[in-house]
Parts: sequence; C-alpha cells; structure tokens
Amino acid sequence: MSTRGLFISFEGIDGSGKSTQVGLLADHLRARGREVVVTREPGGSAGAEEIRALVLQGDPDRWSAETELLLFTAARRDHLERLIRPALAAGKIVICDRFADSTRMYQGLSRGDLRATVDQLHDLMIGVEPDLTLLIDMDPAAGLARAKARKGIEERFEDFGTDLQTAMRAGFLALAQEFADRFTVIDGARTVEAVTADVVAAVDRKLT
Amino acid sequence: MSTRGLFISFEGIDGSGKSTQVGLLADHLRARGREVVVTREPGGSAGAEEIRALVLQGDPDRWSAETELLLFTAARRDHLERLIRPALAAGKIVICDRFADSTRMYQGLSRGDLRATVDQLHDLMIGVEPDLTLLIDMDPAAGLARAKARKGIEERFEDFGTDLQTAMRAGFLALAQEFADRFTVIDGARTVEAVTADVVAAVDRKLT
Repeated sequence: MSTRGLFISFEGIDGSGKSTQVGLLADHLRARGREVVVTREPGGSAGAEEIRALVLQGDPDRWSAETELLLFTAARRDHLERLIRPALAAGKIVICDRFADSTRMYQGLSRGDLRATVDQLHDLMIGVEPDLTLLIDMDPAAGLARAKARKGIEERFEDFGTDLQTAMRAGFLALAQEFADRFTVIDGARTVEAVTADVVAAVDRKLT
Repeated sequence: MSTRGLFISFEGIDGSGKSTQVGLLADHLRARGREVVVTREPGGSAGAEEIRALVLQGDPDRWSAETELLLFTAARRDHLERLIRPALAAGKIVICDRFADSTRMYQGLSRGDLRATVDQLHDLMIGVEPDLTLLIDMDPAAGLARAKARKGIEERFEDFGTDLQTAMRAGFLALAQEFADRFTVIDGARTVEAVTADVVAAVDRKLT
C-alpha cells in the first residue's frame, strides 16, 4: 500500500449517510495501518470554525452571496493551510466531509450566475482539489426518511424540504460529470455495508 | 455644485492627521449643502466590523497573510454593498478613512509577493476604486511626535516604530505614483488649516 498522502472528500445531500461512511472508511484505513485525519467543512480548523460560526449565526440575509463566498473561502484557506496540507505532507490520508464541490453546488442553486466567480476565487486562493471525491447519491425522499429516524434532525429538514434536496442531488450529479476524473458516484440507497464496500473499493483503487 | 455621488478615500501613516481632515472635510461639504457619509476601514458596516473584530483579536499569527486578505476582502465587500454603494447611488459623498490602498500598502510591506494576488482578488470581488484618494503625507518622526501628544496612542506606536512608518510612507508614495490619476498627495506637516485648504481644493476640483 502506498504511503503518500491522499485527499478524499465526501459529498452528498443531508441524510445520504455521508458521515457514517466517513467514519467507516477511517476505521478501515486505520485497520490497514494508515494514519487518517477526519475533518469536515465548513470549519475543520480552529480559525475556520470561528469563521463558520460568524457566517451561520444571525439573520440568513446578513451576508450577500459574494461576502459569504469570501468568508467560506477564508475558512477553507485556513483549513487547508493548518490541517489538510500538513497532514498530506506527513503522508496521512485526509477524509473531508464536504469540500469545494459543496460550495459550487450551493452557489449553483442559489446564484448560478456566480459560478464563474466561484471558480476564479477557488483557482486564485485555494487551487487544490481532492484526489478522490465520493458522491453518496440517493433519492431525497429516502434520505429524508433516514434523517427523520435520527434525533433532532427534523427541524433542519423542514427548513429545506424535498424540492431543494432534489435540486441539490441534481447539482452534485452534474458536478460528478464535470469532474469525472476525480468523482466516484456511489448508490447510497442500499445497506450501510454495501455502500462501504464500494467506498473502500474506490479508495483502494487510488492507493494501489 | 454637482449632485452626483463622490467616493473619496484618505490614506496615510498613523499620526498624519487623516481623521482630523476627514472630519473637517465633512463639515465643509455639509456646510455647502451636500449629504456626506463618513466611514472607515477595516470595518464600516455592521458585518464588516464583526469580521474586523475576528481578524484583529487573538494571536497576530493566527491567520496567514492569504486568509487575512480574504477576510478583509469579505469585510470590504460588505462595507461596499451595505454602505458605500447605496450612499453613492443616493447622490451622497462618501469619505472613507482607508480603503483598498491600505491593503496594497500593508501587503506590499509584509508579503510583496502577494501583490498580484491582492490585485486579482480586488478586481474579482471589489472592482471599485475611489474617485479621489487624498494621501496625507508626512515624515514619520513628525507624525510620531503628533501622535504621542494624543492620549493613549503611545503603545501602538511602540509596537510599530519609526522604521516601519518610514516604509509605510514610501509604500503610499509609490501607490500615489502608480495610481496618479486618482491620488492627490498633500503635505501633512503643516498647520491643520493649511492642510484642510488643500484637501478642500482637491475635492472641489472633482465636484465642479
């Protein structure tokens, strides 16, 4: 097994089982002797978490789309410098729950005209893509049912609704086509074990 | 007198008397019947002030130069959208104590290799320059003596020192040459009244 670092991101709608799969993949890789760093966005480093808190607190309209994009890019830059890059340089595997594709997807839904700006800002200030992006894809109705079975999640879902989740799913699938070289789409509407088997297979292909 | 909006920035080292001149110019313009908005950077709008507080609090090394640049750009974008642009659109005169030239100057001193990034980020996310930038220029030794005469300023100056102030002065003068079309350099080492006379003359040339 290779000992170079590897940067893996997970993407997918809420309720897709991303977080569960992140944990199971980390367990699998650690059992095989790899050092693994599990992280998430927005946030992931001390500074990025503070920026995240600033963005998410208060009135949803307090920041324009452009200002929010700058703040999330600042958080991502901090996360990249303070956690992701040092871990990769030390030969570790970084598993990140959401990365820049989530920004592309959300902006695509809310302000599609900003996509060129999103890309230019990413190229200028981030300039890094994951080696592998695992999209856990599933029908939003199934994701919603799964999420409702978990405690305390209902309110968030009432805010979003199935229509928005459907649009998010389509947005992620479009990104998977656009960045086909690094995306692997995994059917999340199966048992946890079946999904994990596909996740592990995709990662092992990158590591061998 | 014209009734279109006008965007004026003041730049200069600490102790140059910028803030005094901002106030006197505002008084002059109001006495002539113009609506004036006085503001400052970093900060200037509610959101920008929160970002400013996040940047300035804590360990000076907590943010990299790039992350800090993104945060200050987010603050500037908010300031521009929420305060500067609406005021200009309403025909008001906006007087801003420091704007993007301060970012260029500070980055030029601390991380000169970032200047191209500073410019690209500005073009992408801000895209606005003042109609007129008044550089209150003076010898740092004179500025230091003036600042020390004011209460509570000593500690900040001990942090900076005259060498850094000298470099800042040179940085501002270089920007005045680079953006000669909008900069007016005013000798700040004279009486307040003499400096104000030059400030008013420069602004009146823009308004008539």
